[in-house]
Amino acid sequence: MTEHWEPDEALAAFIELDHDRARRRGYPEAVYCEGKTPGQVAVIARASKGSGATVLFTRAGPAHAEAILRELPDARHDEDARLLAWPPEPPEPRGGRVVVVAAGTSDVGVAREAQLAAQYLGRAADLIVDVGIAGLHRILTRLDQLRSARVIVAVAGMDGALPGLIAGLVPGPVIAVPTSVGYGAALQGLAPLLTMLNSCAPGVAVVNIDNGYGAGHLAAQIAAPL
Amino acid sequence: MTEHWEPDEALAAFIELDHDRARRRGYPEAVYCEGKTPGQVAVIARASKGSGATVLFTRAGPAHAEAILRELPDARHDEDARLLAWPPEPPEPRGGRVVVVAAGTSDVGVAREAQLAAQYLGRAADLIVDVGIAGLHRILTRLDQLRSARVIVAVAGMDGALPGLIAGLVPGPVIAVPTSVGYGAALQGLAPLLTMLNSCAPGVAVVNIDNGYGAGHLAAQIAAPL
Amino acid sequence: MTEHWEPDEALAAFIELDHDRARRRGYPEAVYCEGKTPGQVAVIARASKGSGATVLFTRAGPAHAEAILRELPDARHDEDARLLAWPPEPPEPRGGRVVVVAAGTSDVGVAREAQLAAQYLGRAADLIVDVGIAGLHRILTRLDQLRSARVIVAVAGMDGALPGLIAGLVPGPVIAVPTSVGYGAALQGLAPLLTMLNSCAPGVAVVNIDNGYGAGHLAAQIAAPL
Amino acid sequence: MTEHWEPDEALAAFIELDHDRARRRGYPEAVYCEGKTPGQVAVIARASKGSGATVLFTRAGPAHAEAILRELPDARHDEDARLLAWPPEPPEPRGGRVVVVAAGTSDVGVAREAQLAAQYLGRAADLIVDVGIAGLHRILTRLDQLRSARVIVAVAGMDGALPGLIAGLVPGPVIAVPTSVGYGAALQGLAPLLTMLNSCAPGVAVVNIDNGYGAGHLAAQIAAPL
Amino acid sequence: MTEHWEPDEALAAFIELDHDRARRRGYPEAVYCEGKTPGQVAVIARASKGSGATVLFTRAGPAHAEAILRELPDARHDEDARLLAWPPEPPEPRGGRVVVVAAGTSDVGVAREAQLAAQYLGRAADLIVDVGIAGLHRILTRLDQLRSARVIVAVAGMDGALPGLIAGLVPGPVIAVPTSVGYGAALQGLAPLLTMLNSCAPGVAVVNIDNGYGAGHLAAQIAAPL
Amino acid sequence: MTEHWEPDEALAAFIELDHDRARRRGYPEAVYCEGKTPGQVAVIARASKGSGATVLFTRAGPAHAEAILRELPDARHDEDARLLAWPPEPPEPRGGRVVVVAAGTSDVGVAREAQLAAQYLGRAADLIVDVGIAGLHRILTRLDQLRSARVIVAVAGMDGALPGLIAGLVPGPVIAVPTSVGYGAALQGLAPLLTMLNSCAPGVAVVNIDNGYGAGHLAAQIAAPL
Amino acid sequence: MTEHWEPDEALAAFIELDHDRARRRGYPEAVYCEGKTPGQVAVIARASKGSGATVLFTRAGPAHAEAILRELPDARHDEDARLLAWPPEPPEPRGGRVVVVAAGTSDVGVAREAQLAAQYLGRAADLIVDVGIAGLHRILTRLDQLRSARVIVAVAGMDGALPGLIAGLVPGPVIAVPTSVGYGAALQGLAPLLTMLNSCAPGVAVVNIDNGYGAGHLAAQIAAPL
Amino acid sequence: MTEHWEPDEALAAFIELDHDRARRRGYPEAVYCEGKTPGQVAVIARASKGSGATVLFTRAGPAHAEAILRELPDARHDEDARLLAWPPEPPEPRGGRVVVVAAGTSDVGVAREAQLAAQYLGRAADLIVDVGIAGLHRILTRLDQLRSARVIVAVAGMDGALPGLIAGLVPGPVIAVPTSVGYGAALQGLAPLLTMLNSCAPGVAVVNIDNGYGAGHLAAQIAAPL
Repeated sequence: MTEHWEPDEALAAFIELDHDRARRRGYPEAVYCEGKTPGQVAVIARASKGSGATVLFTRAGPAHAEAILRELPDARHDEDARLLAWPPEPPEPRGGRVVVVAAGTSDVGVAREAQLAAQYLGRAADLIVDVGIAGLHRILTRLDQLRSARVIVAVAGMDGALPGLIAGLVPGPVIAVPTSVGYGAALQGLAPLLTMLNSCAPGVAVVNIDNGYGAGHLAAQIAAPL
Repeated sequence: MTEHWEPDEALAAFIELDHDRARRRGYPEAVYCEGKTPGQVAVIARASKGSGATVLFTRAGPAHAEAILRELPDARHDEDARLLAWPPEPPEPRGGRVVVVAAGTSDVGVAREAQLAAQYLGRAADLIVDVGIAGLHRILTRLDQLRSARVIVAVAGMDGALPGLIAGLVPGPVIAVPTSVGYGAALQGLAPLLTMLNSCAPGVAVVNIDNGYGAGHLAAQIAAPL
Repeated sequence: MTEHWEPDEALAAFIELDHDRARRRGYPEAVYCEGKTPGQVAVIARASKGSGATVLFTRAGPAHAEAILRELPDARHDEDARLLAWPPEPPEPRGGRVVVVAAGTSDVGVAREAQLAAQYLGRAADLIVDVGIAGLHRILTRLDQLRSARVIVAVAGMDGALPGLIAGLVPGPVIAVPTSVGYGAALQGLAPLLTMLNSCAPGVAVVNIDNGYGAGHLAAQIAAPL
Repeated sequence: MTEHWEPDEALAAFIELDHDRARRRGYPEAVYCEGKTPGQVAVIARASKGSGATVLFTRAGPAHAEAILRELPDARHDEDARLLAWPPEPPEPRGGRVVVVAAGTSDVGVAREAQLAAQYLGRAADLIVDVGIAGLHRILTRLDQLRSARVIVAVAGMDGALPGLIAGLVPGPVIAVPTSVGYGAALQGLAPLLTMLNSCAPGVAVVNIDNGYGAGHLAAQIAAPL
Repeated sequence: MTEHWEPDEALAAFIELDHDRARRRGYPEAVYCEGKTPGQVAVIARASKGSGATVLFTRAGPAHAEAILRELPDARHDEDARLLAWPPEPPEPRGGRVVVVAAGTSDVGVAREAQLAAQYLGRAADLIVDVGIAGLHRILTRLDQLRSARVIVAVAGMDGALPGLIAGLVPGPVIAVPTSVGYGAALQGLAPLLTMLNSCAPGVAVVNIDNGYGAGHLAAQIAAPL
Repeated sequence: MTEHWEPDEALAAFIELDHDRARRRGYPEAVYCEGKTPGQVAVIARASKGSGATVLFTRAGPAHAEAILRELPDARHDEDARLLAWPPEPPEPRGGRVVVVAAGTSDVGVAREAQLAAQYLGRAADLIVDVGIAGLHRILTRLDQLRSARVIVAVAGMDGALPGLIAGLVPGPVIAVPTSVGYGAALQGLAPLLTMLNSCAPGVAVVNIDNGYGAGHLAAQIAAPL
Repeated sequence: MTEHWEPDEALAAFIELDHDRARRRGYPEAVYCEGKTPGQVAVIARASKGSGATVLFTRAGPAHAEAILRELPDARHDEDARLLAWPPEPPEPRGGRVVVVAAGTSDVGVAREAQLAAQYLGRAADLIVDVGIAGLHRILTRLDQLRSARVIVAVAGMDGALPGLIAGLVPGPVIAVPTSVGYGAALQGLAPLLTMLNSCAPGVAVVNIDNGYGAGHLAAQIAAPL
Repeated sequence: MTEHWEPDEALAAFIELDHDRARRRGYPEAVYCEGKTPGQVAVIARASKGSGATVLFTRAGPAHAEAILRELPDARHDEDARLLAWPPEPPEPRGGRVVVVAAGTSDVGVAREAQLAAQYLGRAADLIVDVGIAGLHRILTRLDQLRSARVIVAVAGMDGALPGLIAGLVPGPVIAVPTSVGYGAALQGLAPLLTMLNSCAPGVAVVNIDNGYGAGHLAAQIAAPL
């Protein structure tokens, strides 16, 4: 039967075209470091240097960072965000503004990863910290800033109530990022994840637990210039 | 070996004493109807009539209600709360005030059960409906009422964010009741249950999903006269 | 202590202002019918008639629909989407184009709910059906249409792989909607929900299981005119 | 940016080719009825009649069956398996033999679905019933038959131990099908699913709960003639 | 559209008022150390010194404690409770008495955290250890002390049966704290959490796993002077 | 390779022997009715009549019962226990005494199934109802009866605390049966199942949710005459 | 109200009696070391020395063992079982025989803990290793030994099928112990736990994951002399 | 009663026969190292040396490897796969070709384990890396190779979509291996496991998370020479 599945020249053409397109999209390549050895990551870093294209290294531990910086000494390293970027300077921002909001100081690392991802994908991106639902007044003082954003990334652990609260107060879309901050019934971030999926206010969509990079990437796509 | 476990007169005395105390506590007996046949419930209703003591029938379906009303025709029946009470009049309220808050109109049945339970245990109890987190202004207009309560019962399904929000705004304790309102990732009330257990603001404790009776009972205990 | 929590005129002013703003946003009010009685829904329908504002009734069963149509006979009723809209005509579309994609014919109801929500919030919205991952060629023939969308809503049950596949092929943001289509290890939609949260391709965010309305609302916000 | 994603002639060619190949594979099309209306299924049945190709309708309830039989009166209908096939006669068997084993009589429907799927995909397929692990001797009497199979499909609910037991006794591959037979901690089939995934004996792979069709299909692929 | 969301003077007034109120409540600020670096915690400790207000540091590991004690050398450090308090002396107790009960010696750390939290919020608070359900007589000897409490905090891991047992014996409210003590099917505290939510006796509400601080805080609110 | 797996005469002998032994054990055959059609059950009933051996039909719904009674009109039918037995009289009791305890009246059906199973396997078996943990004195009055049992079967839903409490009071083994009585966080019986697995007192083992038959069978084995 | 809950002399008498009984049962005290500091355990060890009563220390890590042996140098320490016993010699065996069976060599530690527990509670107890379901013949060679036991403890991880298989082959009760051996879908022992709860053969009850001590204790109770 | 369970010569014969058969199957013995001490593994290694039979050591950590290599210095050690094989050379390949596909570089260890297992069981086996669904074109370029395989092993973490995608493109059976690569909602591999069980395309069966060995073994059985 297998003779029916012969090689396919039309397909090969498609693949080449597609590959070329990906390059033209202009978004940097992201390398997920967790689960890779420092050696594997170093090989990728070296290859990036040759290509000249922007590359982001996400979820990079200290050993990953060291390996990358040996290959790309001028790469930017943000330890809170566990992110390295090369070349170190983000592109000139275009499109709408992204605002990243973190419910508490323990959520800052993930929020910072979102902010940097958005910036390296070409957007202006602000970061507001410690405006959780337990201190309602801190959110309310920021309403103007939140309402002026093209898209908001809201980062919260524990009860995960912040994104839904913001969505009820602003006209723009809200990307919610649950974090693994908390303990016990927080279930390593599953509790805020569920909260966010069940937001009473429409206008909220959710990414994986601690996935600051994904949220920043999506926000950059939403705020892209037309 | 079993000869070491002989009858125990001291124990019998304890038991009698204890039984007597339970009677003196003055809280009505509650009969959980779900999982009982209408016939079983009718037997209990008939026995209550004889004793003269207040009795609450909780989670009573239409068939349970019919059976109870045949025995206790003047019992009070609240269909939203699925609760019957006999004698129909709650006692004169004493102690502090209970305020029950429902996030949405779909949560009213559970909230009403909590209100009635508190009332039949001897407390003044208010009910406020539809002040969910998606309409923040509706909560904020009720702040004075909420802050004047000795204890608040906050009832919410879906994201379950209401109790934590209220706890950040008032000085008193908040009893949180998750409801099974919602769908999908609400997981029949597990999602709001988790949210409430992870409240960022201290001052929140949680009862079982849809357990309006338990929340009203606990609120009555908290607001009991000293 | 409670004397510290006195009434608050400044707050009242805020609330009134805010309420007024909500009205000016121009998005229709949505009434979630599930968990409400037909009678409750009828009351809301009657009130809507008086206000003249656009209203959407979501997750409406046959009894809900009948009650609404008695009050608003010219309301539009889409049975697949379990949605009623009044006035029946959506507004003139503005902003970017929304494309809704359903993996299989069983996902059409949810996908249609997303499409209608986007349309009643003022966007042009297409619907493409039956392009699931098992028939890769059906997706690939639609690439141009998908790539031209300002935002894509991808609806899938079972393995939930469609949104991630699309996100790897298009430059725009993808809103993923898991559905409860499937059985066994589909866990009433939890399996595709998890798949979508773990998408290898960035650019995907997820809403609740079967939440077509939420996805359509969010897509309309993303594609809103600047 | 979207101008980079223009139509693609090479792709179109690929798609047509691929579609053509699928037709040439010779496996019948399967229509999953659950979640489709009888009307939708009838439309597909009518279309099948025109094409002349073999079609299987799986997980068909009584209303689905009635709708299909109105269009294809000579279709074969197996009520236990909830399966209809048209044309009614399976193809002449080729390749190796498939043996389907059901642990208990309650598992017969799923086992029968596997057997029929394998037969309509062109394999000889036997069915052995009620050889569960609690009656070890019933398995042992069937060892020769089991060892002569090219591939075994083992169907079990509750403790799900049968596939692992068989895998320790025979040289061939075992496809395990957990069923939703059982109650309580059987968790609608999750318990046997986990058992099967954790089989101590190598040589077992698992399909979705109650997925007789999928197991039969896979068995037919494994036993295909070279 | 965003011009509709301009700054809001009424809101600003509200926020200032509210902030002021929080200060007047008199409850100490709590700093959740887990997930913060020792450096971040040190910054907060230094700031507390300046303000003079009471501050509690919860879930503080050895490195957190060292950092805090360098800034606040006279802070009280309870290693069992992983809690530091500054100034070291709790306020003069007012209001009702709190009794904290631990089922086993492994639950003492969490119970101690609850006791200290209640004390630093201004209540008299006792601690009773090792009165679990397996040794019923140990509970029964403590009945008078338990019955004299304004509110009981009951701390238990494993089967989590203690709070329900106590609630059946005393007239006051019971705050239940599940702990992560146990193994296997204790599921890191989820098993006792579920037990407590399902208490047959009314009068029990539950906080997060290991959340001694939250339970002590809530108990202090319940036992607050009127 | 398969020629290595030839038929096996030694095995056949073993099987015949074993089958014979099973018959000599003297325990009645049990037919699990759920998931079988009334017709299938009727066939088994008719076969039993011929063999003359004792047979139990468990989890029999009304339609099953009707079908069985048509074949075996003098069979005993206990509707609470959903069990039918034929011949109707249990054997003369031998061995030790089994005591079955039900926490609440809603648990009676399962407890009765355990009692009858033990009786039809040849043990004397008592049933005590409504001695749940919330009414501690009701358990304590029964201590002598409990301590005199060779084995105790303790049946409870909701918090599932009864078996662990009893195990701390008696010297004999306790078989715990969780029931699906309860709602919300009872998780259809998973919550009491977990409680029982985590019993602080040793001497407890657990069977499946609602599995009264299994518990009664095991109790009969434990109390078997030596 | 609290004046109704006065001290209780009858109760005190009960408690003393009960305490005395526990001492007379003759079962050794068990100290669960996990979650206790070595210092706490040492205190208990010292106290045991004074009392002269047998004591078992379970789940003891190296630091616990060292602390105990410093107080009780002649205590018996079994590292596989993580158990220490003092005095080192178990009592003369009485009653029936316990047979402990381990599915694989990785299950030996838990199985050994069960064996030692049974021995120190006064039973003769054998241990059979590596007779898992994947090697059926190894079980079958041990049938006589298994059938001669008064009670069997069957220990297994991964698929957890061993206890159910044995229960179908022997007349006596089987206590099943799931272990955390395995990975992935073994879910730290939840998978074999579920398998065992769903055993097709009656006569199986289950204890907590890795709870060798509990199983051995229960087995000793079952095999106790009459 | 136990005298009915006497020794059994027919059984003994069966067992001997069976043992002999296992030896004749020709598949190497596999030793699962995790959960065994290096010492235990060394004993097995030494025994293997004597027997001369091929043996695979799976999930071997560095300490296991060291212990094995001390006994079998010429054993082959693949660190990525955590596998050692002795004798070091796999047998000459017979039967069909196995193709192992890994979605990402982090999945390589598990994929390599599958490849080596297949090779040591006597099959030719290729490995293709980094063809995940997010880069569709990389899969499509490999279609010919995939379609020529007798069986495909598809290894993926995170969204786990690769096996279903491949199954829609090739005629042969696909063995899916979920990996624990990923974070948050990947749930240590449960998310891709569920995805694979719910594959829309038939022809996929699943093994345990990270179970490369099991997949390779099963693939070798499927591709065995007839």
